[in-house]
Amino acid sequence: MLDSLFYPSSVAVIGASRDARKPGGGFVRTLLRFDFQGRLYPINPTASEIMGLKAYPSVLDVPERVDLAIVAIPAPSVPKAIDDCAEKGVGFAVIHSVGLGEVGLEGKDLESKVLQAAKTGGVRIVGPNCMGICCPEAGINTIVSSADVSSEGGSVAFVGQSGWATESLLIAGSERGLQFSKVISSGNQIDLSLSDYLEYLASDAKTKVIAAYTEGLRDGGDFLELARAISKKKPLIVWKAGKSQAGARAVASHTASLAGRDAIWSTAFKQVGAIRAQHLDELIDFLVAFGCPYLPKGNRVGILTEAGGGGAVAADACEDLGLEVPALAEETQRELRELLQGIIPPFAGVSNPVDLVWITDPSLHVLERCATIMSRAVDALLIMTYYPLADESIAADMEKLQRNIGKPVAIVPAYPTKQYRGLGVYARHGLIACPTLDRAARAFSILVDYNKTLQNDLSG
Amino acid sequence: MLDSLFYPSSVAVIGASRDARKPGGGFVRTLLRFDFQGRLYPINPTASEIMGLKAYPSVLDVPERVDLAIVAIPAPSVPKAIDDCAEKGVGFAVIHSVGLGEVGLEGKDLESKVLQAAKTGGVRIVGPNCMGICCPEAGINTIVSSADVSSEGGSVAFVGQSGWATESLLIAGSERGLQFSKVISSGNQIDLSLSDYLEYLASDAKTKVIAAYTEGLRDGGDFLELARAISKKKPLIVWKAGKSQAGARAVASHTASLAGRDAIWSTAFKQVGAIRAQHLDELIDFLVAFGCPYLPKGNRVGILTEAGGGGAVAADACEDLGLEVPALAEETQRELRELLQGIIPPFAGVSNPVDLVWITDPSLHVLERCATIMSRAVDALLIMTYYPLADESIAADMEKLQRNIGKPVAIVPAYPTKQYRGLGVYARHGLIACPTLDRAARAFSILVDYNKTLQNDLSG
Repeated sequence: MLDSLFYPSSVAVIGASRDARKPGGGFVRTLLRFDFQGRLYPINPTASEIMGLKAYPSVLDVPERVDLAIVAIPAPSVPKAIDDCAEKGVGFAVIHSVGLGEVGLEGKDLESKVLQAAKTGGVRIVGPNCMGICCPEAGINTIVSSADVSSEGGSVAFVGQSGWATESLLIAGSERGLQFSKVISSGNQIDLSLSDYLEYLASDAKTKVIAAYTEGLRDGGDFLELARAISKKKPLIVWKAGKSQAGARAVASHTASLAGRDAIWSTAFKQVGAIRAQHLDELIDFLVAFGCPYLPKGNRVGILTEAGGGGAVAADACEDLGLEVPALAEETQRELRELLQGIIPPFAGVSNPVDLVWITDPSLHVLERCATIMSRAVDALLIMTYYPLADESIAADMEKLQRNIGKPVAIVPAYPTKQYRGLGVYARHGLIACPTLDRAARAFSILVDYNKTLQNDLSG
Repeated sequence: MLDSLFYPSSVAVIGASRDARKPGGGFVRTLLRFDFQGRLYPINPTASEIMGLKAYPSVLDVPERVDLAIVAIPAPSVPKAIDDCAEKGVGFAVIHSVGLGEVGLEGKDLESKVLQAAKTGGVRIVGPNCMGICCPEAGINTIVSSADVSSEGGSVAFVGQSGWATESLLIAGSERGLQFSKVISSGNQIDLSLSDYLEYLASDAKTKVIAAYTEGLRDGGDFLELARAISKKKPLIVWKAGKSQAGARAVASHTASLAGRDAIWSTAFKQVGAIRAQHLDELIDFLVAFGCPYLPKGNRVGILTEAGGGGAVAADACEDLGLEVPALAEETQRELRELLQGIIPPFAGVSNPVDLVWITDPSLHVLERCATIMSRAVDALLIMTYYPLADESIAADMEKLQRNIGKPVAIVPAYPTKQYRGLGVYARHGLIACPTLDRAARAFSILVDYNKTLQNDLSG
């Protein structure tokens, strides 16, 4: 249904500018840099050429069909622009303009006119008061600069009511290795709403995991039914804000929706199998975790470290979250001791956590052999290592290890520093790369929960 | 009591090597690079010169008094080395060597011999099985490479039972702008123990905040009494691991101490006014927070953002932690509206959160004026901004703002990315710079708690 929104053959930028620092100029430049392969039509009442492209005074002057209009003009001009889009038969309009429904009576009036014009001509609206959409695979991106997000397509979809949340996820998530299928900044949602986007993403073959930032949920019951249906097919992570009194106040003046009572939402999300993220870091960790091709079949975690202290900290974090860190069987411990004979000192623990002790500087081969032996007794493996994370070849080795054992592997740097880009390398290899032990444990716990959701559904 | 441990006039490196990749070589190099101003004596049975310094076969051959011996030789040779130290009258020996008390009967036997020799000659021991000490002000550092920690002294002290935890805090904390007074990796603690270090740091004028990573606490009652006494003078933050079953197992094979029942510790810490950090990120956030020269006098937080979504998220995080985000009085709101006339659109919230809306790109002056007006109604200010964090001049302006309002100011980047070094710039200016809104809120809540501890103490 939204295919030509994300994969348009032709795009008009209404309010295009020669000045790339203005929104309408930035959009043209980003689309050019993002290597959009369709036809791009800058719309500007006075310019004849913008960034090497022929410009047109109105969308009505464009010589062919327009799939998508990106609207970046002052609010009072938006109704006319959408009128034109309706007359032209434009499929979708992404309205970046602010100063509509969120500003009081005058803006609401403008917004009604926009909606009416859109309905007349069958134009579907994203926004207004939104930051745009991004579909790297199609070369479409009006949200952030091309430097901040990979132009390579991925499998993570995101719908964000807040532009800030959307930009933040794109930028910080990209650093952590996330690659996106479709991202929508949904804004005021006067036409297309969270539910529309979620329905589309649920059946989008490119999307393997869906996340949403939302402040209010108008039709709570409908949303939960949808969330239940989606969660049976793919993970749905919801970052819901505006839950506190002051938060609700912020939301009221911001996107004019009402924040529901919070605890109820948490329970309801759980019941339908949706996953709640409390903040951006959690959201990113969870999305990285679902990038791993394996789900843990149970809650038993094996911890392999190169530092004893890290083993204790990791075990604490796991047990705090209801994960089990089972002692390894005598036989397995013997096997590990044999493998590690002459490598680790006799005092190093091999019962789980297994402590390779940094002084041994274990070869990757030894680390992998240990992991393989441990993996038989657990459902997931957490490895804390001094190996540099930004190394593609080590990441590829670890990916192979994960594939061989067929269980999720989380990687945490022993030095929690300067490693964000390094984490991204591992994440792109399908490993659950997290900056700290407690965050890796939390990511595991979410995978365990989601596996239960799928199992309950199969058995229910 | 430990003055000549941290400010030695002369240091001998027992096991010094020409090879900087070996511990004994690395220590000499790091001390040279860290600009240690005292005399440095490499001890090596065969070398006559190491890195340009005259080397001696034994500490007994050093021509003057030795305040501090750094011991980096295999475990079996340690008792003899400490015998020599005792005979020489060395004040302190930091024993990096592993394979002593932590490795079973044989190691315990070596350890007893070391202790006996030390006692005979009055040598006080740090370690063994430790990563060393760091006192940047004195040019002393045997923990991490000189690239990872500022050689400028600071006011943060840390005692870490785990070498990994100690290195991690030094490296990740330095990135966040922490500067250290004294850092000790305490290892097996056969002589000097956590309590000894804490007592010294409590009365050390250079140290304004103390943190410790500990796995077991042998004399729990004594520790709590000490913690109570310290907390009256300066904040004490404890990161205690080994609390879970598996964590306790990891600890048992690691530093041979017993992890107590965890919930009891949390309650006890609270009772004595000590602050518990659950993981490294929290510990660093709290230390950054205590770098701010102001404590909040109450729990009211003002939130000033350049993004509405961020306001909602911040308000949620504050209220979740028991902080209040009070609506501003009508009069204050009117004052803000007047100031922001023509700058922010009429829909932007000014009731707290105050939303400057990113599109306005507010001048620093406007941001500061807003903060000043808001500050009258609250005890602390949380500012989320698109201003670049790594800018010294903006950081200096913000520091001035904080000084003028006399209340703690937290700064969070609106784009949570590539900002760790930027955060450090702000933190060194005394601002509570945190990577995310929820972490800033948590840092505030700790300051509020600590202020209560001090007040209760004054009134009790």
